Amino acid sequence: MAIEIEQPSVGLSKVAVSETHGEDSPYFAGWKAYDENPYDESNNPSGVIQMGLAENQVSFDLLEEYLEQHSEASTWGKGAPGFRENALFQDYHGLKSFRQAMASFMEQIRGGRAKFDPERIVLTAGATAANELLTFILADPGDALLVPTPYYPGFDRDLRWRTGVKIVPIHCDSSNNFQITPQALEAAYKTAEAMNMKVRGVLITNPSNPLGATIQRSVLEEILDFVTRKNIHLVSDEIYSGSAFSSEEFISIAEILEARKYKNSERVHIVYSLSKDLGLPGFRVGTIYSYNDKVVTTARRMSSFTLISSQTQHLLASMLSNEKFTENYIKTNRERLRKRYEMIIDGLKSARIECLKGNAGLFCWMNLSPLLDEPTREGELTLWNSILHEVKLNISPGSSCHCSEPGWFRVCFANMSEQTLEIALKRIHDFMQQREAKRS
Amino acid sequence: MAIEIEQPSVGLSKVAVSETHGEDSPYFAGWKAYDENPYDESNNPSGVIQMGLAENQVSFDLLEEYLEQHSEASTWGKGAPGFRENALFQDYHGLKSFRQAMASFMEQIRGGRAKFDPERIVLTAGATAANELLTFILADPGDALLVPTPYYPGFDRDLRWRTGVKIVPIHCDSSNNFQITPQALEAAYKTAEAMNMKVRGVLITNPSNPLGATIQRSVLEEILDFVTRKNIHLVSDEIYSGSAFSSEEFISIAEILEARKYKNSERVHIVYSLSKDLGLPGFRVGTIYSYNDKVVTTARRMSSFTLISSQTQHLLASMLSNEKFTENYIKTNRERLRKRYEMIIDGLKSARIECLKGNAGLFCWMNLSPLLDEPTREGELTLWNSILHEVKLNISPGSSCHCSEPGWFRVCFANMSEQTLEIALKRIHDFMQQREAKRS
Repeated sequence: MAIEIEQPSVGLSKVAVSETHGEDSPYFAGWKAYDENPYDESNNPSGVIQMGLAENQVSFDLLEEYLEQHSEASTWGKGAPGFRENALFQDYHGLKSFRQAMASFMEQIRGGRAKFDPERIVLTAGATAANELLTFILADPGDALLVPTPYYPGFDRDLRWRTGVKIVPIHCDSSNNFQITPQALEAAYKTAEAMNMKVRGVLITNPSNPLGATIQRSVLEEILDFVTRKNIHLVSDEIYSGSAFSSEEFISIAEILEARKYKNSERVHIVYSLSKDLGLPGFRVGTIYSYNDKVVTTARRMSSFTLISSQTQHLLASMLSNEKFTENYIKTNRERLRKRYEMIIDGLKSARIECLKGNAGLFCWMNLSPLLDEPTREGELTLWNSILHEVKLNISPGSSCHCSEPGWFRVCFANMSEQTLEIALKRIHDFMQQREAKRS
Repeated sequence: MAIEIEQPSVGLSKVAVSETHGEDSPYFAGWKAYDENPYDESNNPSGVIQMGLAENQVSFDLLEEYLEQHSEASTWGKGAPGFRENALFQDYHGLKSFRQAMASFMEQIRGGRAKFDPERIVLTAGATAANELLTFILADPGDALLVPTPYYPGFDRDLRWRTGVKIVPIHCDSSNNFQITPQALEAAYKTAEAMNMKVRGVLITNPSNPLGATIQRSVLEEILDFVTRKNIHLVSDEIYSGSAFSSEEFISIAEILEARKYKNSERVHIVYSLSKDLGLPGFRVGTIYSYNDKVVTTARRMSSFTLISSQTQHLLASMLSNEKFTENYIKTNRERLRKRYEMIIDGLKSARIECLKGNAGLFCWMNLSPLLDEPTREGELTLWNSILHEVKLNISPGSSCHCSEPGWFRVCFANMSEQTLEIALKRIHDFMQQREAKRS
């Protein structure tokens, strides 16, 4: 930094000096390795290919086409009256037109099988903020949230860092395709109790990141029964709902509640975002949909710390209220993601690598356990290191997602071109052949 | 809300049920009264005029003119390559071009008398988030920050609600024009100690909201000496720095540090925002400038919860890196604010009302203590109520700013047209005449 300043000893808070921000995980270390030597087809063909980033770039052309045809969404032209109101708009309710558009977009994604009331939509600058904000509202420092493993590594930061809340894992494994069971729920609850923690809720991600699979209806029913019996909350993070490969394959907790006539729904809160399904993480658009009036009111007040730029609300209100656009986008995006998924699964299969059967998301859950020198976290990280530095692919080790079974990796496939994906698959293929050659 | 849901007894956190969000203050109650019956020249000429909102609308035409001439700042036109990168950009460092533009804008506001390093700029979605984020980093729950009174009512929420930190007031009064003294600093520190609180810092607002006045160099020196002696932090909230009526009248803590060759600067953190000086609260652009490396790193990580839309960064990077525009904007905006200030001060004077001598901001600090039936908070709120419901002006009572002396009110003058301001002054004039008539 240009201005040199002595840095002595004025103290900072415990939060500031704690490591619960989680950035020292291999999940983020892989990103840094990529940043230092990024693959580029022409300029750096031997660089690291980033497969650790759950970004959706497959449908950008549709967004660009929309913006081309609807310049009014992003421009304040000559004498346009919208600029003043928009520049001043900082009401934490958010633009009504945008909340309405969000609610109907969320309904469309669910094939019209669930209804969303715009008055229950609370806007936040991304799902990161939405998850933290809900944690602040649902749990006190030292309390526990139960989270099925493997889970998104960022939760360690989002749910714990500033809130002081603990995550107690609900251990899932490959014996039943990582499904959540009543036994696993009960075991996690007992673990928390044994550690003298008060359990305040369960947080699920549906479709799951990193599994790339949706949660079955019967499992959702069991989870809802569980939280009801324990009188705790249920947060359903559904930020990949529009990235299920078909609408029918995804069942929202909202549909279960609708079927139950909203009985016990006051404990249920849905998180959504436009970062994944629409591929707009830079725009920072997240939302909390709560069936609990007090949570809605409190979350809205709290959203003062994380409001969405009104300029961005304005653009997206226009885009998402255009049903012709959204229908086509949702359909096309699903088809393209499925095609990508099939491409990577086939490529891996031909390299004799198996993945968990997936039906959603921007990644697959790859099983490399047969390749481990030893079936431990260390063995997994050794393999991860080879893949990162020799094969030059950044994938995410399951241990960074708190997976209890070593040898699984999350591999992202939607943040690159098909050409780049082919090169990545070729590298994996070669790597596997070399290993087999060594062994024989 | 359209979907009817039973609301029974699943518990929420202490933060969720606490009242430290501060929304029940008369400060916000006045806004609600305005919202229910807003003044409109033609449609509701007897409605409430909003003078409780520190908004800057006097220089919008300059922003609109810029946008007209520079459509590239806000549009992604046909085949424009910028959209994809921008939509994906969620790096918590923020767009480099925007950080550079912010740093130089902050330098320009200070007449070039202070330098800012873009690498020390941390971006947040508004100053609300910046102040909370710094509090999380500097203090633990139960610790104290010392804040001079009167202060911005939102601090009760921003510094306390989710952090659990306490505010201990540094009492200032009219005997020395509400200046901060070493005695008042020391007294506040002792009060905190007597309550067994650990004091972690002092937070000043310069120029002051609600006083509408800048802090003198000698006072800044004393405050810096004080925090150095106590080995605590100093947060200088300078969100109105570009709204001082001339550059010379405002001295930033950055200038004091520069003069001291950055000795002891690692305890100093500046908050800035574009909501006031540029009149863009809807765009949610705040920033922390810290001289402490560890605070910069930690704040940047924490800003994940409150990132600025990259669309908005893109637009403002373009606008603020255009020096011809910024120079003219800063100069013209200052002149217009001074003119408005003189207009309201003259109007009040002719109604025999005195204000604190101001030189900055979007409001004046009005002394109505001679009108109180009794010199108490209750007396002040009775008068406030009459002014709100009879005179139909929403102004902010000093007690909502924790002023220890009853009878002072903050009156905003930049969020309306000159015509509306004239009507507001006429109403005050009539009100004073009626009162005098009653008394005689």
